[in-house]
Order: sequence, then C-alpha cells, then structure tokens
Amino acid sequence: MAIAYLNGTWLAPEDAMISVFDRGFMFGDGVYEVIAVYHGVAFMLDEHVQRLERSLTEIRLASPLTGSAWRELVNDAIARSQEQTANLYLQVTRGISMPRSLDYPAPGKPTILITVTQVEAQSRTHQPCKLVTKQDFRWGRGDIKVLSLIANGLLHNEALAAGYDDAVLIRDGLVTEATHANVFIGTDGTIITPPKSRYILHGITRQYILQIAREAGLEVAEREITEQELLDADEVWISSTGHEVLPVSEVNAQVIGEGAPGCLWQEVNALFQASKPSESK
Amino acid sequence: MAIAYLNGTWLAPEDAMISVFDRGFMFGDGVYEVIAVYHGVAFMLDEHVQRLERSLTEIRLASPLTGSAWRELVNDAIARSQEQTANLYLQVTRGISMPRSLDYPAPGKPTILITVTQVEAQSRTHQPCKLVTKQDFRWGRGDIKVLSLIANGLLHNEALAAGYDDAVLIRDGLVTEATHANVFIGTDGTIITPPKSRYILHGITRQYILQIAREAGLEVAEREITEQELLDADEVWISSTGHEVLPVSEVNAQVIGEGAPGCLWQEVNALFQASKPSESK
Repeated sequence: MAIAYLNGTWLAPEDAMISVFDRGFMFGDGVYEVIAVYHGVAFMLDEHVQRLERSLTEIRLASPLTGSAWRELVNDAIARSQEQTANLYLQVTRGISMPRSLDYPAPGKPTILITVTQVEAQSRTHQPCKLVTKQDFRWGRGDIKVLSLIANGLLHNEALAAGYDDAVLIRDGLVTEATHANVFIGTDGTIITPPKSRYILHGITRQYILQIAREAGLEVAEREITEQELLDADEVWISSTGHEVLPVSEVNAQVIGEGAPGCLWQEVNALFQASKPSESK
Repeated sequence: MAIAYLNGTWLAPEDAMISVFDRGFMFGDGVYEVIAVYHGVAFMLDEHVQRLERSLTEIRLASPLTGSAWRELVNDAIARSQEQTANLYLQVTRGISMPRSLDYPAPGKPTILITVTQVEAQSRTHQPCKLVTKQDFRWGRGDIKVLSLIANGLLHNEALAAGYDDAVLIRDGLVTEATHANVFIGTDGTIITPPKSRYILHGITRQYILQIAREAGLEVAEREITEQELLDADEVWISSTGHEVLPVSEVNAQVIGEGAPGCLWQEVNALFQASKPSESK
C-alpha cells in the first residue's frame, strides 16, 4: 500500500504534514529524486543516490545520511509498502526557518520525505505523445534537481491546455529538454541527445539509454540539437524515470517521421525493457 | 502576538501544518506578498493586493478571494495579532496534488496562509549594508512574486558566507535587483533605477520611492544601469518592504561615494518616513 516516511516516522501519505515554515513550502528550497520500482526492486538506485548527493552539494546542504543509509532507507520503504510496481519519491529540504527568512538556518535539521505510490502497469504503455515547442525561461541550473519547479509546471500545463502532452523547451534556438524528461532524436540512423550542461537535468534514464545503445553498437552522439533539426528528425523520444523511453509522434502538430514509433526507438526500448529488474530476480 | 491563518482557521504559527502533497512544498507552485504593518496599519495594502492578483493571474491560478475580501482578511489578521509593528506574510499555493503530479489539480482548492510576526523596531535602523555582485541566473520571470526561490536563497547566502549583506545581481552586464530588494543609484544628482521588466520584481516600495521623489521635484530616471555605473555611483540604495530604503556603503569591497548615506538618500528616506502611517492615525 502507499506509504510515507517523514523525518523518522512511517505513516499513511495523507497523514504526512509539515510546518508551513518548512523551507520547501516557503522557498522551494530542497531537492528530490523519483525512483522506479520494478518487481519490488529500486531501479538504478546507486545512480539516484549519487545524483541526490550531488544536488545536495550544489545547493550547499550537507547530506543528512550516508550513501548506504540512503539506499537502506529506500529499500526499507519499498519493503514496507509491499508494492511491486511503484514510484518512490524522495525529497530533502533545508528544514524550518521560523520566523520566515531567506537566511539559511543552522545546519542539521533537514526535512526528509519519502513516498511510495503504486503505478498502474498500463500507465507505462509507451503510447506516442505530442509535444509543442516553448521558450525555456527556467533558471540557469537545470542540472540541479530542485523543488523550485514553478516554471516547469507553467510550461507543462500550458502544453496540456493547448492539447499537447508536454512542451519541449528551446533556449537560444537549441533544444534543452522537456518539462520533466530529456529529449532524443533519431536522424539518418544516429541517436542524438543534447550534451550535459547547466541547462538540462543529467537524467539517469538518459545516461542509461546512451550506455545500452552504445553497447549494442548503435550510432550515438551527444551534441546540440536545433529546433529545426527536432522538427526534421526521423524520430523523437523523451526519457525519464516515469516515461522510460517514450516515442513522440508530433511536434507542433507536425508529424515526426511516419508518426509511429521508429526503428531506433523499437531497438532501444527493447534493450531497455530487457534490462529492467525481472520477476525472477 | 504572532498569529497564523491557514485555510479558514486561526492558530499559533507553530501549529500551522500542511500536507506534504501541497504544491507549495513539492513544486514551489504559489505566490506571496510581504506587507509592512506600522502602528497597526497595513502599509500600501491596495497595491499589495493588486500585485498578488497579478501574480495569481500570471501563474494561471484564479484568485480565491475578491480584492475587498483580501483586504478584510489582512486587516482581520493584524487586528487579531494586536501587533503595532509587524510583517504580514501572505502566501497562496495551488493546493494539493496527491499522488504527486506536475499536472495542475482541478481548480478551487488553493492553500491560503497568512502570518503576522512582530518586527523589532531596532531592526529598521537603516544601517548601511555591503553588497557583492553576482551573475543573475534566476528564471526569466522575476516580475512574478513566486515561492520558487531557491536561486535567490543560494545567491543571498553565498553573499552572507563571504561577509556581505546581500548580492546585487547582474544579467548581461546590467543590474537587475538584489536577491529580495530593488536597486537604486544616485549619480550627479539623479536617482536612477532599472526599468520594469520581466527580470525584476515590480517593487511596491520601489514604485513609492519614485512617486515621492518625483513629487518632491527630484531628478528621477528609470533606465538600465551597467555594473560599472553601479560601482562608480555617488550613492547606492536597496528598497523593499522589509528594508524600506537602505543605503549601501560598499559594493565588492569598494566604497560607494563617501561610504556614508548620501544626500539623495537622506532626502528620500525623510520623505518615506514622513509618509508612513503615523501613531496618531
């Protein structure tokens, strides 16, 4: 069942309450991870814990737990939930500032939240999605996985309101990412994704796709993608923990390739699905 | 005494708790105002309510109250607190998304928080402050007063850690603002502040300073300020509800003017202090 961990206590998610003076609530001052649970196993757990620790370092917040303690806590949460197919959400904020002040409080009392929520198996169907391009006006550190996500929310929901599934963001004429996923294109048999920079999240699914594609001998390039290259691509995909590798059928109401999942996607998705924790594990 | 209002209930601030699924906590998805209370009166209340309504419109969140209902609620909070010199903090979030999702929830259940906190009279001493310039890497909509403030927190606390009082932010070589205040310079007898744009908060104190300075016949200009002009200025000030009009004695450890509050600041601050709600009101 759904379960939450909040600062040492296990409880039902709907009972997890925090002070309004928590800096997560007043300043978006914290970081997070979303981890896929397949057959009761946390996928790419080491990588998520490493990225969490990097995010904490970047926002000048000492990690309250060691790497092994984070992994143990995550595994404990999954075990207590008894869920097989789930999303585990992990959030760390800088704790309470009361009265409200932008000045950081004395270190040592961050807020740690974990929730485990069942995912309907059919929600991972890889139904092709439709994107719309939008100017990327987010902050200049999209590589840090922070809670201050109002821009992502505005861009995503503007896309939804216009009948799309998400927005693909353009900064200075170049593709950065979707509002909560990385972007890939397939052109002339090559898989291309924007290089790591301060403007995009260093996605764990992105990194894993690059690895399995290279291991399979596919042509892979990490380089800038212009808006025009995106529209002209044979294939477009987005990737994230929640989306896995999701084909894109239209961008700006223009059909991509044949409008159906392409050959490169078929190959990469098959590799991805085969490498997930299996039932027999 | 300190008091809080949370979704219709009056309580002690330390008892004000919200769900971890509130979009304020998980996405910084909300807006806020800080209002000065002088002699039990909310200063510039109409202007704060108007800006709150503009912020809500910009983040596509219908205002849950009318303008007059907001003013009534603010005045009720001040009356219940019985405070004479205080800061009133008002925050509205998009409510709860459970399970967590970037998709906006059905409208109609935003979270409204108000707190009233006493301000020590001596904290408004106008002691000159020291600033350090930093690159402005915040999002491209600094004109919306949102909760997603992690960048402001990082920049402010980096300045504090380096022995300064705050950072003054530079975008493309031009001064935008401090981390939670607008910036003014005085040069050759003219008061200059950056024009309204998407990169700066349209400060109510900033607007009021421009108004009282113009009414007093002072030379005033709203135009871009380069980083060099800032360093070469005769005077530098910052302004906000909390700071009022605060003189700056040093930028990047370089003394501004004579290092003491300048003539223009003396004049504007006198006008500002004289126009605040008075004890007899």
